[in-house]
Amino acid sequence: MNAVAELQAIAGAKTVLGPDEAFTERHLRDFNIVAPESARPVAIAYPASTEEVSKILAYCNAHDITVVPQGGLTGMCGGAVPFRPALLMSMERMRTVEAVDADGATMTVQAGVTLDTVQKTADANNMLFPLDLGGRHAHIGGNASTNAGGNRVLRYGMMRDLILGVEAVLMDGTVISSMNRMIKNNTGYDLKHLFVGSEGTLGVITRLVLRLHPKPLSVSTALCALDSYDSAVKLLRHVKPRLGGQLSAFEVMWPEFYYTGTAALNRRPPMEPKPETGIYVLMEAMGGDPERDAEHFASVMELALEQGIVLDAVIAQSAKEARDLWSIRDCPGEFPAAGHFPQLGFDVSIPTGQIGEFAKQVHERLAAHWPKHKALYFGHIADGNLHVSIRLDENSGTEHEMDEVLYALVGEWKGSVSAEHGIGVHKRPYLHYSRSPAELALMRSIKSAMDPKGLLNPGKVI
Amino acid sequence: MNAVAELQAIAGAKTVLGPDEAFTERHLRDFNIVAPESARPVAIAYPASTEEVSKILAYCNAHDITVVPQGGLTGMCGGAVPFRPALLMSMERMRTVEAVDADGATMTVQAGVTLDTVQKTADANNMLFPLDLGGRHAHIGGNASTNAGGNRVLRYGMMRDLILGVEAVLMDGTVISSMNRMIKNNTGYDLKHLFVGSEGTLGVITRLVLRLHPKPLSVSTALCALDSYDSAVKLLRHVKPRLGGQLSAFEVMWPEFYYTGTAALNRRPPMEPKPETGIYVLMEAMGGDPERDAEHFASVMELALEQGIVLDAVIAQSAKEARDLWSIRDCPGEFPAAGHFPQLGFDVSIPTGQIGEFAKQVHERLAAHWPKHKALYFGHIADGNLHVSIRLDENSGTEHEMDEVLYALVGEWKGSVSAEHGIGVHKRPYLHYSRSPAELALMRSIKSAMDPKGLLNPGKVI
Repeated sequence: MNAVAELQAIAGAKTVLGPDEAFTERHLRDFNIVAPESARPVAIAYPASTEEVSKILAYCNAHDITVVPQGGLTGMCGGAVPFRPALLMSMERMRTVEAVDADGATMTVQAGVTLDTVQKTADANNMLFPLDLGGRHAHIGGNASTNAGGNRVLRYGMMRDLILGVEAVLMDGTVISSMNRMIKNNTGYDLKHLFVGSEGTLGVITRLVLRLHPKPLSVSTALCALDSYDSAVKLLRHVKPRLGGQLSAFEVMWPEFYYTGTAALNRRPPMEPKPETGIYVLMEAMGGDPERDAEHFASVMELALEQGIVLDAVIAQSAKEARDLWSIRDCPGEFPAAGHFPQLGFDVSIPTGQIGEFAKQVHERLAAHWPKHKALYFGHIADGNLHVSIRLDENSGTEHEMDEVLYALVGEWKGSVSAEHGIGVHKRPYLHYSRSPAELALMRSIKSAMDPKGLLNPGKVI
Repeated sequence: MNAVAELQAIAGAKTVLGPDEAFTERHLRDFNIVAPESARPVAIAYPASTEEVSKILAYCNAHDITVVPQGGLTGMCGGAVPFRPALLMSMERMRTVEAVDADGATMTVQAGVTLDTVQKTADANNMLFPLDLGGRHAHIGGNASTNAGGNRVLRYGMMRDLILGVEAVLMDGTVISSMNRMIKNNTGYDLKHLFVGSEGTLGVITRLVLRLHPKPLSVSTALCALDSYDSAVKLLRHVKPRLGGQLSAFEVMWPEFYYTGTAALNRRPPMEPKPETGIYVLMEAMGGDPERDAEHFASVMELALEQGIVLDAVIAQSAKEARDLWSIRDCPGEFPAAGHFPQLGFDVSIPTGQIGEFAKQVHERLAAHWPKHKALYFGHIADGNLHVSIRLDENSGTEHEMDEVLYALVGEWKGSVSAEHGIGVHKRPYLHYSRSPAELALMRSIKSAMDPKGLLNPGKVI
């Protein structure tokens, strides 16, 4: 094909392959979404440098070829999946860790470095890169472009809070290098936050300066049983000041989720389910005083028990016991084995104090349509983030039917239809429930200013 | 004047005043910069609602009247000072605290609420709004539009990290309401970060959702003497992990600054200056365990003394002693009394590990031009932020001459010409030292997309 030959002439025959030469299949799906047949790629590019990314984009812009940037393809919403013929730009050859600055607590990386490598490199330098989520072979550039979240957002923030500098290439080939390494930098508009979370529609992220944190010297973990969601909010307000900024996870699980999680464990649960338990909380704190942190954590829990906020609690006495407690929370990975599969997952947010009531309404709305459906509720409630997993079976609706019901309800509550997974293609029809016409118009005007021809990751987000 | 009458007809005679009716003088300067004679305002608007802001902007946009939004006028760079005839839009009547959500840890406010009121309202609700800086009669909307910093950024982040939601009005009157109240919200482009830090050039911020933190239950404060800047970096790396996320200030003072600060105190300094001391550090930690935090803090300091990182240290034994230690760091407020006045202040950033060497080069460059100049060095070094204060006298150059020398050096070091004060008009000529032509072009293209006629706060930032 002509475009492939011309691109090879510009960027090298190793960098651009035609769809017949490349391992095309693996570029046609993410964790949830598969490309349609009609989306056979024009070419697949594997640039090894920012300069190559720039040359390829400039060519495509001049020749009206759409481009879909791709990271580790671990996304949930199809943001990196092609839906029409396009050049796919995989960042997998840009996998160099360029520098670690221990004094400044930063790491400079190319976008194709995996999250796993970033975590391990930080650890080897006696520091912590706190972003943690299921898909650790995600590219760090993909984590940036989707503003990834996960379990420790409460303490360390979202991916955008872990980025100091960004380099990205616009569709016309312009390299925007904002590789800032300082926490404070007020020199004009913060372009970094435009590229972070825009899912590859405004530019292709090529390099990042990441912010590192000190490695924790102690970790304390507890599983608690409480009577109701409102008690979980009370517990959060009890522990936040007393753990003085050390609280690193506060994961809430409704009983059905807990039963599924402990059943998947295939051994005796750390805490027997009791009928009076209305909610479970998995809590984690990371501190700096190995000698005294465990004692303080236990005394904070003791007080919560005395005050009747918590019905019962188990504190992990070893790293193994902590892992066992976490394995209940991590059970979504075991949903197929637990018979809760196929499932439809929701990732929404609502202010923390309202999640209990909102979850009840979700149940009522779903039950009104599908009385026998089975749903599991869990979430990072300190961040306002609720997950709902509905088993797809003869008792449920179709994905589309249930999406409509749930996202409309999120709209009524002025919540967010995507807390951490992004919009991609999957949630695009529901974006209007969370953003006003004026906001959407402004997003479109920014998109037009940065990609006038609309060639970069078209059909995603807006 | 016609425009005044028409604006009064639209927005009310109380909301729009002609320059003869209003207290015009106080609208013509900020902390550092005074408006030129030629900048006599067209009118002064005091809107009390978002709707009034919208009507006034739409009128001005249709009639090609430039608009300068104003908060508490405590800025340092002239961002809110008019430089040509314009409508001045003061937010001082928009001073309602609309809601405090204790469970979600948020406060919803109008833009004209002062920082002081926000801090006190949080405190009255047993929470902390951690932004802290000298000008507490700053408007919170001004803090947002300049992305204010201060002493506790190390622990709690910049102003942008303390904002969950923003409502702003574009120059054409469009209201962009992104009043998100959740920590996680990945629904399209993050418009909030466009308005934050753009100094009123992209929209007028009218309302905010602020993020609150738990009130600390313990505060520990120490003043340390060290041999050199490099030891201060060692101390930072020593305390960060051991204080497990509780470190809330790490303020570095070079000896001349310390002498000036202690002289201004007018009493015996907490630590006698010694010739072997090359640097002073004021450290603060905020924790959750009043019984044990002081002991742990002391043991961390003890270890630093044993390991020779620190030469000497004083730990405050009471809130009064802590205030006394802080008063040395806060001595820039006493510069006039200390004879260090008039002065030229610099606010720049450089990666933490390089600040010692950079400060030496600043001194050499300045000394090469003005051998007898007097400069004081201090900074929030954990954020990479260095302040330099040069006395303006017969031994110094002019402001412009010294700006040229210092900002060119910042450019050579790839640092930031504004760490926390912003660009305004004052630093606009030096922005190119920190941002590339491609970055500046992209900023201009965003400005054009959002304010096509260039009527909103013209001549500021870009």
